[in-house]
Amino acid sequence: MKHTAVLLLSTPMRFARKGAVAAISQFLIAHHGSVLHSDDHLDSGRDLFLSRLEWDLDGFDIPISEFERNFQPLAERFQIHYHLALTDYRPKMAILVSAYDHCLADLLYRHGTGELACDIITIISNHPTAKPLADFHHIPFYQLTNPKDKRASEREMLELLGQDVDLIVLARYMQILGPDFVAQYLLRMINIHHSFLPSFIGAKPYHQAFERGVKLIGATSHYVSADLDEGPIIEQDVVRVSHRDTVEDMLCKGRDLEKVVLSRAVRWHLENRILVYKNKTVVFL
Amino acid sequence: MKHTAVLLLSTPMRFARKGAVAAISQFLIAHHGSVLHSDDHLDSGRDLFLSRLEWDLDGFDIPISEFERNFQPLAERFQIHYHLALTDYRPKMAILVSAYDHCLADLLYRHGTGELACDIITIISNHPTAKPLADFHHIPFYQLTNPKDKRASEREMLELLGQDVDLIVLARYMQILGPDFVAQYLLRMINIHHSFLPSFIGAKPYHQAFERGVKLIGATSHYVSADLDEGPIIEQDVVRVSHRDTVEDMLCKGRDLEKVVLSRAVRWHLENRILVYKNKTVVFL
Amino acid sequence: MKHTAVLLLSTPMRFARKGAVAAISQFLIAHHGSVLHSDDHLDSGRDLFLSRLEWDLDGFDIPISEFERNFQPLAERFQIHYHLALTDYRPKMAILVSAYDHCLADLLYRHGTGELACDIITIISNHPTAKPLADFHHIPFYQLTNPKDKRASEREMLELLGQDVDLIVLARYMQILGPDFVAQYLLRMINIHHSFLPSFIGAKPYHQAFERGVKLIGATSHYVSADLDEGPIIEQDVVRVSHRDTVEDMLCKGRDLEKVVLSRAVRWHLENRILVYKNKTVVFL
Amino acid sequence: MKHTAVLLLSTPMRFARKGAVAAISQFLIAHHGSVLHSDDHLDSGRDLFLSRLEWDLDGFDIPISEFERNFQPLAERFQIHYHLALTDYRPKMAILVSAYDHCLADLLYRHGTGELACDIITIISNHPTAKPLADFHHIPFYQLTNPKDKRASEREMLELLGQDVDLIVLARYMQILGPDFVAQYLLRMINIHHSFLPSFIGAKPYHQAFERGVKLIGATSHYVSADLDEGPIIEQDVVRVSHRDTVEDMLCKGRDLEKVVLSRAVRWHLENRILVYKNKTVVFL
Repeated sequence: MKHTAVLLLSTPMRFARKGAVAAISQFLIAHHGSVLHSDDHLDSGRDLFLSRLEWDLDGFDIPISEFERNFQPLAERFQIHYHLALTDYRPKMAILVSAYDHCLADLLYRHGTGELACDIITIISNHPTAKPLADFHHIPFYQLTNPKDKRASEREMLELLGQDVDLIVLARYMQILGPDFVAQYLLRMINIHHSFLPSFIGAKPYHQAFERGVKLIGATSHYVSADLDEGPIIEQDVVRVSHRDTVEDMLCKGRDLEKVVLSRAVRWHLENRILVYKNKTVVFL
Repeated sequence: MKHTAVLLLSTPMRFARKGAVAAISQFLIAHHGSVLHSDDHLDSGRDLFLSRLEWDLDGFDIPISEFERNFQPLAERFQIHYHLALTDYRPKMAILVSAYDHCLADLLYRHGTGELACDIITIISNHPTAKPLADFHHIPFYQLTNPKDKRASEREMLELLGQDVDLIVLARYMQILGPDFVAQYLLRMINIHHSFLPSFIGAKPYHQAFERGVKLIGATSHYVSADLDEGPIIEQDVVRVSHRDTVEDMLCKGRDLEKVVLSRAVRWHLENRILVYKNKTVVFL
Repeated sequence: MKHTAVLLLSTPMRFARKGAVAAISQFLIAHHGSVLHSDDHLDSGRDLFLSRLEWDLDGFDIPISEFERNFQPLAERFQIHYHLALTDYRPKMAILVSAYDHCLADLLYRHGTGELACDIITIISNHPTAKPLADFHHIPFYQLTNPKDKRASEREMLELLGQDVDLIVLARYMQILGPDFVAQYLLRMINIHHSFLPSFIGAKPYHQAFERGVKLIGATSHYVSADLDEGPIIEQDVVRVSHRDTVEDMLCKGRDLEKVVLSRAVRWHLENRILVYKNKTVVFL
Repeated sequence: MKHTAVLLLSTPMRFARKGAVAAISQFLIAHHGSVLHSDDHLDSGRDLFLSRLEWDLDGFDIPISEFERNFQPLAERFQIHYHLALTDYRPKMAILVSAYDHCLADLLYRHGTGELACDIITIISNHPTAKPLADFHHIPFYQLTNPKDKRASEREMLELLGQDVDLIVLARYMQILGPDFVAQYLLRMINIHHSFLPSFIGAKPYHQAFERGVKLIGATSHYVSADLDEGPIIEQDVVRVSHRDTVEDMLCKGRDLEKVVLSRAVRWHLENRILVYKNKTVVFL
């Protein structure tokens, strides 16, 4: 079991040049925190220096509850924005799902193998389909009492989840969430949706893509923002199709794609590898 | 040197079921034409049967100039639309290019290795950049006399190309062609353009994609139709990018992608592998 | 529900040229069998013509039990080797598995969605691990009584499976099967194994690949032949790795790869798309 | 024009933990060198910390000729192995080529676009084929006087290249180089070769792969070591093939693959992104 801390941080480039990085290194060393991984990135267009630091907590002489107080002077001096995470904390994850359960089944299997280090506290659905799968994996399953009433359903979910949840995964949850609900879980809610070249708007996108004779179909996972499908992109991938693929084949390939693209995004989030800024992500792999 | 003929054909499904395929086979055998390859596809949505047949002309007892007259009764009986091509005919190809010459250089190299079986009759450009490359490959280079006047340039090209050209490749030709010019070369003009998930409209798409933090960039080759970038798609591919890629890196990866996606499309066209119908393609590989 | 027949056939090239294809077409039409799909391939090196034909059984006037008797004269005249399959027959599939159950879980999920059109008659294992998964999917689970005794285990499996099984999938079954067992199920047994560039022999291949610093890892699915991992290749794929991937990451990526590569092979087999000849496959997609 | 320095370094993990990283950061800051990029990697199996640091030389107050003297105490204290490179130094590159010139043509084109920041000082060949291409790009072309005499040819090349060359690219140079020649240019010589799953030994590997019915073909670029094709791997990639690909198609796809895999390796080397240790590479992208 790893007992480490991860710091995701950004600082204006001029501060990075004036020694922010060295100062952070010195701070950690002074407190006997040995750095295991560091990765950084310079967004010269935005004049921002972005970094992910992971260090061993064995021997680190600041109790984590005291970290903020100790780090604050440094953060202020260099205008550092940061997020601290402990790798032995198991985030609490909720999954929202509708009738299509392929992403859910994949997430539950990966959770079972230990690939996704989190506690799945609940599966919420507007359909009964996923219940047996939830039961098999011993995850509490909650079916919305009145799925047709969107506002009531969101209130129901808010009550159920409160602020105890660290991450909500929309594993093909086919309801558009209202801005109030989204605002509660900003940058804590990951969605998966298909994406095509060119893009198709409206219903039945796979049928449209088939009609248009595309040669690739794709999927995109992203954080949910007020603009729904316009939030920061985490991961994308595509798969090749040809005229021999029927719409059903395309749907089947799309399911396989959605599974891997969503599970990668969830894993990277749980491993504290994603830094979001200005509606885009840096994924430190 | 192959001495074969290729027939690209379509027939309504009900005629295919009533023996169109067997009748064509019998027709070829009766005339001592042995089939080397046959490939077909059923578009059940459009109720169309599509096929590509290639047969040996050695021993085939109908002179090619007489083929149409002999095949006509069959075509009428089964409502067959068809296109006949001879593999030992070398299509005449013209390339239009602007300042970026990566696709041109790639096409010329492949032409030199024999990968593209055609005669490149001319390279036309609104810039002088490509001249040395054209000279090196001994291809006539023609620079438009007044590139700023789009209509005059199109008239100049029409005069130059006439109807002697079988295929026009827009190898990053950065001028939008008018409907009159397009109409002259319908389904005989192949273009390459970038394509992204999500799609970005307007200028500097790579810069927009960079700003949006996409994880893939793509390219699409297609026949040019009246709707310009909306013509039948021939080929698409993508390449992975990350935050570590600068806009320049993305442009560089985009160039590599455009080269292969365009050259595949040109090759398949020259090999008579592409059947276009209802604004989509079947590529018989 | 499709009610069609599939013919996978090969004939020497000289017979194909003399009208074997047209004769088969005529045979089907004469018996009111309308061809829905045909795909063929010419292996010029081996002088063989290979084909897959699918036709509608509605209206076909030969009872399937009489097909062989009716088709025999044609087959003899053109030296046609063939295999007939009915698409509404659900093949009986058995899965052999050891402790790693990722491929099994994937196959069972796909079976549940209808993607794999077969009846899974049993899951046999030398470990108890997979039992809950088998139970959840209501598939009989059989644990070998004395897994350490390889010969006894094979006899046990032979008794259990007999000749009632159409396909055996080795979903990470970690025992080398003896030649007698293999001989019973030739071309009816599909295996999955890792494959690397360069290849690594001996134990812990992922550890060896990690030590060597490879940039890709791969998986291959194939029919099991007497030479075990040297049987006809059905499908292969790779995934990119870098120095940032630990051995555990590589194992995890390898699992994802094995799942898709195996499930594609199984699906293509069940859909009668694979023609095997001279230790290689043609997959008609 | 970038005016930066790059440090590729390794240090035992225990020193990294004791502050090697912070000490280097402090050293750079003390001398007004602002870090633009840093990337590191921990090889826990080998107990090694590996890092790539790039900093701005504008304002850096140590003349580069004095860097070693100044850095030495730090390097000794933390047992740091390092390699220093200046990004505005243009490495001198030689290309060895035989009759197949696809990789050469690709490298020269990329050099022309500025993608490969180096001076190509000579192209050496045992064939005359590449001369026109070399002339077109104004690169001196040298044809070996007695290509059949391998030892004499190597002496000839050694005389020609001496120690003035920073990188030798074997762009499909089809002669096996002797250990003496290799020893002169260790880790300064990059080769490209095909690679298959499974691997095929002996002549005509593409023909063997075709016979075996593989579904993927690959290429690997690597540094040349005494064990020839067993040197540290820099990059690998694959492309999909099917039964429809003839041996010629496979050779053609293989050429495209070799071009991109080799050019990536050369570019990363020129950008000082590759750290080699214990016969493997870390590529800091």
